[in-house]
Amino acid sequence: MIMANMFRFSSIPFRQVQIDDPFWNERLRVNHEHSLPKQYDMCERTGRFDALKLQWKPGLPKRPHFFWDSDTAKWLEAACYACAVRPDPELRARIDRVAALFVGAQLTDGYLNAYFTVCDPERRWKNLKFNHELYCAGHIFEAAVAHHQLTGSEEFLQAACRFADYIDSVFGLGDGKLPGYCGHQEIELALVRLYRETGERRYLDLSAYFINQRGQRPLWFDIETQGIPRDFLPLDAPPSYLQAHVPVREQKEVVGHAVRAVYMYCAMADLARETGDDSLLQACETLWHDMESGKVYITGGIGSTWQGEAFTTPYDLPNERAYCETCASVALVFWAQRMLQHSGERKYADMIERALYNGALSGMSLDGRKFFYQNPLLSFGHHHRSDWFDCSCCPSNLSRLLGTLGEYLFSETARELRVHLHIGATARFTLGGRAEGTLRQQGDAPWGGNVRYDISVPSPLEFVIAVRVPDWAGAVKAVRVNGTPQPPEVRDGYLHLSRVWGEGDTVEVEFPMEAQRVISHPKLAGNAGQVALQRGPFVYCIEDHDFAGSVLEVSLPGGARLSESREALQPGGESFLVLEGRGVTAAPPEDGALYRPASASSQKEIAFKAIPYFAWDNRSPGAMRVWIPETGVA
Amino acid sequence: MIMANMFRFSSIPFRQVQIDDPFWNERLRVNHEHSLPKQYDMCERTGRFDALKLQWKPGLPKRPHFFWDSDTAKWLEAACYACAVRPDPELRARIDRVAALFVGAQLTDGYLNAYFTVCDPERRWKNLKFNHELYCAGHIFEAAVAHHQLTGSEEFLQAACRFADYIDSVFGLGDGKLPGYCGHQEIELALVRLYRETGERRYLDLSAYFINQRGQRPLWFDIETQGIPRDFLPLDAPPSYLQAHVPVREQKEVVGHAVRAVYMYCAMADLARETGDDSLLQACETLWHDMESGKVYITGGIGSTWQGEAFTTPYDLPNERAYCETCASVALVFWAQRMLQHSGERKYADMIERALYNGALSGMSLDGRKFFYQNPLLSFGHHHRSDWFDCSCCPSNLSRLLGTLGEYLFSETARELRVHLHIGATARFTLGGRAEGTLRQQGDAPWGGNVRYDISVPSPLEFVIAVRVPDWAGAVKAVRVNGTPQPPEVRDGYLHLSRVWGEGDTVEVEFPMEAQRVISHPKLAGNAGQVALQRGPFVYCIEDHDFAGSVLEVSLPGGARLSESREALQPGGESFLVLEGRGVTAAPPEDGALYRPASASSQKEIAFKAIPYFAWDNRSPGAMRVWIPETGVA
Repeated sequence: MIMANMFRFSSIPFRQVQIDDPFWNERLRVNHEHSLPKQYDMCERTGRFDALKLQWKPGLPKRPHFFWDSDTAKWLEAACYACAVRPDPELRARIDRVAALFVGAQLTDGYLNAYFTVCDPERRWKNLKFNHELYCAGHIFEAAVAHHQLTGSEEFLQAACRFADYIDSVFGLGDGKLPGYCGHQEIELALVRLYRETGERRYLDLSAYFINQRGQRPLWFDIETQGIPRDFLPLDAPPSYLQAHVPVREQKEVVGHAVRAVYMYCAMADLARETGDDSLLQACETLWHDMESGKVYITGGIGSTWQGEAFTTPYDLPNERAYCETCASVALVFWAQRMLQHSGERKYADMIERALYNGALSGMSLDGRKFFYQNPLLSFGHHHRSDWFDCSCCPSNLSRLLGTLGEYLFSETARELRVHLHIGATARFTLGGRAEGTLRQQGDAPWGGNVRYDISVPSPLEFVIAVRVPDWAGAVKAVRVNGTPQPPEVRDGYLHLSRVWGEGDTVEVEFPMEAQRVISHPKLAGNAGQVALQRGPFVYCIEDHDFAGSVLEVSLPGGARLSESREALQPGGESFLVLEGRGVTAAPPEDGALYRPASASSQKEIAFKAIPYFAWDNRSPGAMRVWIPETGVA
Repeated sequence: MIMANMFRFSSIPFRQVQIDDPFWNERLRVNHEHSLPKQYDMCERTGRFDALKLQWKPGLPKRPHFFWDSDTAKWLEAACYACAVRPDPELRARIDRVAALFVGAQLTDGYLNAYFTVCDPERRWKNLKFNHELYCAGHIFEAAVAHHQLTGSEEFLQAACRFADYIDSVFGLGDGKLPGYCGHQEIELALVRLYRETGERRYLDLSAYFINQRGQRPLWFDIETQGIPRDFLPLDAPPSYLQAHVPVREQKEVVGHAVRAVYMYCAMADLARETGDDSLLQACETLWHDMESGKVYITGGIGSTWQGEAFTTPYDLPNERAYCETCASVALVFWAQRMLQHSGERKYADMIERALYNGALSGMSLDGRKFFYQNPLLSFGHHHRSDWFDCSCCPSNLSRLLGTLGEYLFSETARELRVHLHIGATARFTLGGRAEGTLRQQGDAPWGGNVRYDISVPSPLEFVIAVRVPDWAGAVKAVRVNGTPQPPEVRDGYLHLSRVWGEGDTVEVEFPMEAQRVISHPKLAGNAGQVALQRGPFVYCIEDHDFAGSVLEVSLPGGARLSESREALQPGGESFLVLEGRGVTAAPPEDGALYRPASASSQKEIAFKAIPYFAWDNRSPGAMRVWIPETGVA
């Protein structure tokens, strides 16, 4: 149902969108067949599932950690999505096992957290700033909603509700309640999901409480640390690290830990949608602008420093020290998706595409079995994917995103069907309940710019089909409706096709697609004199594997032509479009000097090849870079 | 006296070196006449001197801070040096007043710290990690030594010794002693100075204890935080921040807070010199190599991030976010000076020159009244010098360095007089007591490469004069002894002139000096495609003040010629050599986009001017950069 409020659009849920796209079919298959089983095995092997049996005791190995519940809950949620798209009895059995473990770990008062129950019961709610208790609760709620939607079973959802009810009894501004909130936002957006699933208004109110209380003086985080000598905490995380420096509506700049921040912005947008609170939406728009204008990498990565996994200052986007946590790009997609439903503005869809195809997708190896936590844009050769992490938030977060990929493609109003991503798929639309129909999108994306739409409606129906003209395309080359060329009508970045559509109608659209050299804003001084290569939705990179020497020594002559070809990066693997040409190389000084006269450098020509960034570190290990120095015209 | 140990050289003390150099005379005059009075006034105005009267009470303004004693002590020390070089009754009166304040603030047990005495007496020695108590003590010791050397008065020195005796009774590995050490190193090198001044071996032993105990398990910083819930300290500074992660001899990489680190390395070198402990010297050499090969800016700045004012990883040298604390470059000069006396290797003198003329000297405005704490290599226009800082360690630290400038010029052994810096000066040498004589150095440095030496000896004497061939010169153009050309004999970066020198002998040396384009090691990827301009000891920068537009948009064509001229940067001020030519400018996108196709950029020619980096931010405020993108050959 379309919300009758300030959010114009509703995304078409992923259960109504059947993806059929050569590129993405493979990503989803790998996620289903390799990543989810790998994550399950790692949760098992590390004791994360066993922790939920509440049998750990001091002296035993595999002591639970306070964020483990979030890892298992996110695996469960991601597995539910995968199973919804492609039923799988084996996966389903694992899903039900883990859901039962969660239900079984709940205490009689509703509390549910394996770590605090068995390792540190006396510190329940004692350190909201760092202990992730409410964060874990949020992921349990999201898993419970996904499980309910997949299975129809009420048991886990009811356990989640009992936990939420208990939390609601503990936190708030009333007598005897703790006026606190979590140091790692997540429960706020999860409570909105729980509200949407159950209709229980208290969950929405509790989410609003957590958002509204954040940053109010005196700060909860100062209250809960009373009694601890202040001089022991001088380098403690400042409130801005947790976005609690001022109330959320007064926040103008994206600051602090990137994932915390963006999860909070998601909840702010959710609350704006559900409650009509325009002040939250305005804050989100201000924050978006701050991020977009100076704090996001070309890959859609965010978080410029590993110190706090955090945003820094405008235009401070170092490439090697980039944190760009996979979770942060995933969260950025979540946030952009919420903002997109308000205005339908292309910039949000551009960002979804940028983060999805680059900074998020790079978080998983081509075979789905290894993962990046950080996604730098420059590596000296020592950064590689891992089987798992002690803090293993990223793998399952990317699996959650892949499992729900369908819901990022289309939005609708009563009068309009809006296409955001050109991924092959068939969507069942309802135009807000006006009429059912399907739209099939197919084409040669992501390598080509041709896309075709087949419309199926039970009877002729007037509505607008609005197709995003991506930022990288800039224009529409051609449009044909039922084979007849049309002048393209582009408004606000979308090609508008308004008519009475009938069964079997077709639309063909051609976008220009060619490799582009991209430069940065002059204030992004670390990229001065360098270009990135982009083609369609993909940002490209160069890897040592493809060079006779180190990519750290390579430049690209100003006018050098780049040719395109398809190449498999792994034996028998799918092929991707690579860019080839002639580069220039200059060796580093033999004495290793940091600085030397430019005259001491000698250059020679070298074969040059660039591959899509997301696919790096799938061959021999070595250095990688996205931004490439550009030398004089060739 | 030359030490009969592994350190070959002794620097000639600043009291034996009379500087007479157009460039440096002005710097020293400004320091004496403007900076020291300004710092005194700021200490007075902020209550730093009054704090030593121990009369502050809760409710009164100007509550002392626990590092204030270090600010006043460093002012006192710097003022003693200035007064030694140029007697000044007014300054001397202030010196004696402040020394008396320190003496008067000492408690009967020897303790001396205004903050803990009046604000927090029950927390004496309770938080060595962050409370700077021993750090302040170290600066008091250094001030007391300087005061003793200037005045001959014993009173302050004896107070310092009582404090040191008391500290010696509190700290150590004996029964009932605290096996701790300071979170901010400084007392270690100060105790060596106190030992040298008094001959009291216990001070040397106490310094060695502090150095040797650092990093031993269990860590003192873990012991002193016992009883505080660990989950409240997860983002607390790690031991590496304070260089306590492993024992000092096992430290292979420069890590953590830069000033803490380098003060510690100074003490390690001092202890190596005094005790013959080669393992400490070897550790210093390893640490030096790590710093020199990837963790120092072209300006001699160190500390790549303001988060912890710290070293980061090799080749992570971002220009805008550079911390490059003035104190850190000053400390680097201190450390390099100690290392230089061991081997006489040119690389240490090159670093002294690099840090002195650039990253340190930039810490003071041309008029001496404003100061930089951070010295970035890129500014978007918002970084400017201040009158003072809440934590005001830098101004007086630079004044300490300027006050002792003379001692960085010459070293000697029994057989050799080594010239490190080509600053006009007359040095009284003794060749380890063999004979007295003077060497007068004069020339057109720092703008020209000509230098002349006049030797005065009571009777003919055989020794070597070794003159540094700076890294930026690379070679010697000409040498003349008593007017007769000689083939230059350069060994290990020093021009060796060995003969029996007589009264009135002269040497003339010419070094090539021209503006150079300097490039970075390929791994310093943030500088890829960019050049820095250097001429002689000076790194240059470009400032908005000199451009019709923003320097952030300027590039320098590959082969563009640069002309040289002298220009006063302030009305009536001294003139500096500036570089001029033609650059290229490209405006940023009107929509502020972070990324855009390179084809969307249009360039035009622009007048280009570069000034010495140290002199930036003395005219109209605006952006500044050291590294400049280089475009195709002009």
